[in-house]
Amino acid sequence: MSELITKAKKAKDCARLLATKTTEEKNAALLKMADALLNEKDFLIKENKKDIEVARQNGTSTSLIDRLTLTSERLDDMAESLRQVSELLDPVGELLTNFKRPNGLSIDKIRVPLGVIGMIYEARPNVTIDASSLCLKSGNAVLLRGSSSAIHSNIALVKVVQNALKETTIPIDAIQLLEDTSRETASEMFTLNEYLDVLIPRGGASLIQSVVKNASIPVLETGVGNCHIYIDESANVEMAIEIAVNAKTQRPSVCNAAETILVHQDWANNHFSNLLNQLADNGVSFVGDERTQAKDDRIKQATELDWADEFLDLKVAIKIVSSIDEALEHIYKYGTKHSEAIISENEEHVARFFNEIDAAAVYHNASTRFTDGFEFGFGAEIGISTQKLHARGPMGLEALTSTKYIVHGNGQVK
Amino acid sequence: MSELITKAKKAKDCARLLATKTTEEKNAALLKMADALLNEKDFLIKENKKDIEVARQNGTSTSLIDRLTLTSERLDDMAESLRQVSELLDPVGELLTNFKRPNGLSIDKIRVPLGVIGMIYEARPNVTIDASSLCLKSGNAVLLRGSSSAIHSNIALVKVVQNALKETTIPIDAIQLLEDTSRETASEMFTLNEYLDVLIPRGGASLIQSVVKNASIPVLETGVGNCHIYIDESANVEMAIEIAVNAKTQRPSVCNAAETILVHQDWANNHFSNLLNQLADNGVSFVGDERTQAKDDRIKQATELDWADEFLDLKVAIKIVSSIDEALEHIYKYGTKHSEAIISENEEHVARFFNEIDAAAVYHNASTRFTDGFEFGFGAEIGISTQKLHARGPMGLEALTSTKYIVHGNGQVK
Repeated sequence: MSELITKAKKAKDCARLLATKTTEEKNAALLKMADALLNEKDFLIKENKKDIEVARQNGTSTSLIDRLTLTSERLDDMAESLRQVSELLDPVGELLTNFKRPNGLSIDKIRVPLGVIGMIYEARPNVTIDASSLCLKSGNAVLLRGSSSAIHSNIALVKVVQNALKETTIPIDAIQLLEDTSRETASEMFTLNEYLDVLIPRGGASLIQSVVKNASIPVLETGVGNCHIYIDESANVEMAIEIAVNAKTQRPSVCNAAETILVHQDWANNHFSNLLNQLADNGVSFVGDERTQAKDDRIKQATELDWADEFLDLKVAIKIVSSIDEALEHIYKYGTKHSEAIISENEEHVARFFNEIDAAAVYHNASTRFTDGFEFGFGAEIGISTQKLHARGPMGLEALTSTKYIVHGNGQVK
Repeated sequence: MSELITKAKKAKDCARLLATKTTEEKNAALLKMADALLNEKDFLIKENKKDIEVARQNGTSTSLIDRLTLTSERLDDMAESLRQVSELLDPVGELLTNFKRPNGLSIDKIRVPLGVIGMIYEARPNVTIDASSLCLKSGNAVLLRGSSSAIHSNIALVKVVQNALKETTIPIDAIQLLEDTSRETASEMFTLNEYLDVLIPRGGASLIQSVVKNASIPVLETGVGNCHIYIDESANVEMAIEIAVNAKTQRPSVCNAAETILVHQDWANNHFSNLLNQLADNGVSFVGDERTQAKDDRIKQATELDWADEFLDLKVAIKIVSSIDEALEHIYKYGTKHSEAIISENEEHVARFFNEIDAAAVYHNASTRFTDGFEFGFGAEIGISTQKLHARGPMGLEALTSTKYIVHGNGQVK
């Protein structure tokens, strides 16, 4: 039997046990895992160096190597995050509703784990620990499939974590890593409906699209965000500029960063240069429509692709619109339903924006950068859902649960 | 452009408008649709006769022809169900949670429509009206793909309904039917992620599996139920027999009917013949394991497939088990996570069954036949979800919604 099938079977059997583990048992395991990361720092850093060496030989960029690197401080942070997850409320067993029917049946709806989660992700080794801790806390078994570029780090991390589990009541198969990182094996994973209950892809757009297109297992789609800031005619000038600069530049590589700024023509007439200067001061380059180009020659012609693209870089598409309607049309056409913001002092326009924009999160007078499990107060995040089924927006522990109806009767028949 | 793409595009544009329609507008449309069904009875019955004629020529079974047939009374029922949906609470706009963050952001989570629902279903024409009304009430556009055997009936029903919508503020593209019922077009529909937000297949296992396997659009999987009744050693005799007979025979063709009865050996020692006689009196035939065959020669040898099969017929698989553990193992191995029942007076066993069985609904001392949107008090049902993501068990209007975070700020940046 292949490594994939062997581990998937074990995960399924393990999920059955995990669903019945108490909060105390799960928390004790999380704390043991935290201790183990600290005790095994030398081993983990030594194994991580093997990945870094390969990455260097492959000419990987400095920023990617930085994301791949484990340091003593980063291991401290990972241990701390495990402790924090142990302190979160356990969603399993939560009573969501209960009702009594006229025939006397009493029906409780409670939260239960999803079962087995297949996690397919790219380079950063901290995702190995994040995903493991959130899946464990929510009573799920996880089958991790990281990237080949982090394989030594991931094998070492899962080894340390599994050794820690041996000292607890949680079976070690709760957290398993696929050592075979071939594309073929990943594809095989997409259709293992018999063993996996859900797939969560985390990484670039092409990884996510490949999973969405090819998986027969339900997928929690995460990530792609072509987010807009619409500056209404009534927008407060300083606020609008501060939010636009923040949403674009504070961390351009993430999905909740803004990619397009839409500016109402009346606001633009007085404040466009000010906005552009402050963006440029923060290193931003521009593409735009003809109206913006007529105002400022730093702006290059935007292509159709530019309006749709997630730059993930210090680049912004900028457009002058004649009305809020034009802004709503533009977002409808090019938006990815992630996070959209209106900066305005006009209540009617805000109400229209909230009502008519279809997105996971819509903002009034705030940066799109807040679409995040920690910023929303969930204490953790497995990803940001950009689909409409099951979970939308930042996903915390609750997104890793399903429900079960518990029905008490005394002989009812139909 | 093909019929499919033309209608899918229209549905997407329409969904944008529908999301902003008020409850009053939607209810007025539902009532107009109800009136129209009554006013156009002659036309609808005439068109339905064409389908029945084709079915007869094809040698379709009497029971299938019965399900296909529209009568004056059935149209009354369909009109009445439209009126009932108009009286249900509108889920759209419901405030699910709201919270304030330390930085002053105020976050509301509200219900919104899913968008465009692709409904793929088999023969019964009443599904055309059920699906249309539930999608409309929840603010979704629906693209219906019924079976070719009901095509005249479905075209007529949708024509009548669309004519009714012309007298309302709801656009007629809210409810569209694909007149092309080829398999190729249905397959093309599976991957129209650009236009459709979710697919709901309703029908036989092979239809559902085909959608689950081939769709890249998120699917709400419905239907297949291999449900068990476990009669514990402590079970009340009359209650156990009454529930087993009800769960098997009251309507054997549905997914929440029981397919396997597991009997504890101690209970079986005294009451097995009684149970078998009452099932046999209701026309049930039997397959079973060796222990049951030794007790009663009406029982044929069960194959491995029998334990896994959804008979949907007056046939039951029956097995004697030595303990609750053996029953739990059997259900874990063969169950489809739909509905499972324990008949017992032993509280500890009931607690174990509720805790350890992973299913949409678990019952104590009641028939599995209650897993149903109406029986659960939802007032409507679009299907019974057998998956763990998004919705599990009977799905009412809420299952046809997603959520949106509405964030109010006053200049917050990260």
